[in-house]
Amino acid sequence: MGVVDRQGVELLDRDQCLRLLARGYTGRVGLVVDGEPRVLPVNYVMDGQRVVFRTGDGLKLDAARRGDVVTFEVDAVNEDWHAGWSVLAVGRAGEVTDPQEQARLQRLPLRPWAPGRREHWVVVDLSDVSGRTFP
Amino acid sequence: MGVVDRQGVELLDRDQCLRLLARGYTGRVGLVVDGEPRVLPVNYVMDGQRVVFRTGDGLKLDAARRGDVVTFEVDAVNEDWHAGWSVLAVGRAGEVTDPQEQARLQRLPLRPWAPGRREHWVVVDLSDVSGRTFP
Repeated sequence: MGVVDRQGVELLDRDQCLRLLARGYTGRVGLVVDGEPRVLPVNYVMDGQRVVFRTGDGLKLDAARRGDVVTFEVDAVNEDWHAGWSVLAVGRAGEVTDPQEQARLQRLPLRPWAPGRREHWVVVDLSDVSGRTFP
Repeated sequence: MGVVDRQGVELLDRDQCLRLLARGYTGRVGLVVDGEPRVLPVNYVMDGQRVVFRTGDGLKLDAARRGDVVTFEVDAVNEDWHAGWSVLAVGRAGEVTDPQEQARLQRLPLRPWAPGRREHWVVVDLSDVSGRTFP
């Protein structure tokens, strides 16, 4: 049992959060586009403390090429048990263009989220990671 | 069968998106805080074309009191079927402080996401709504 916040929710430490991130495969990337927030679902895989996903041309690639700070969120809720957890991570996004590094990422167990070409590799180096669980 | 985007994903029209939003109960709110994105899970209920949720003091309430444009995202993925959909909505957030309106919202079937006091009511009037589905 860890620290409990003012709402009675148990706060997860960084190691717990990273373990939950490693178990998931679908998350959401939060971006800022022209000053407004956008939230886009992705399939991802962890590479140590980095989030890795593929993308085509679009908002996520633009953010990675700018080196934007983005948010990455994963959650799970069990409707019947009224239990769940959420992890919120913040970090700088970047595109991986080195062919050797791309080949290494290619071997990670990343599942496709949707059909379509996703020829670009994006990584998010996580700095702040926080999480909550409610039994 | 509707319009298909350049990635081969079927795009959902506004009515389809609103029906999916009405079926869900957990979504994520995207905010901008000091220029950086944040993504926070909430339990919600639809009230016509408005997203309704409760919150305590914090980032979501601050955004509502400022009248910020926020993003609301709901998705569902079936791991075994490799099928899913996502809906992304954008709208201006606001706090509901009128006691009669609060009493009306109180009767909506809103489930709690986590323990804790959530004495404030926030609504998001959806302007842009878009969605994708991949069978």
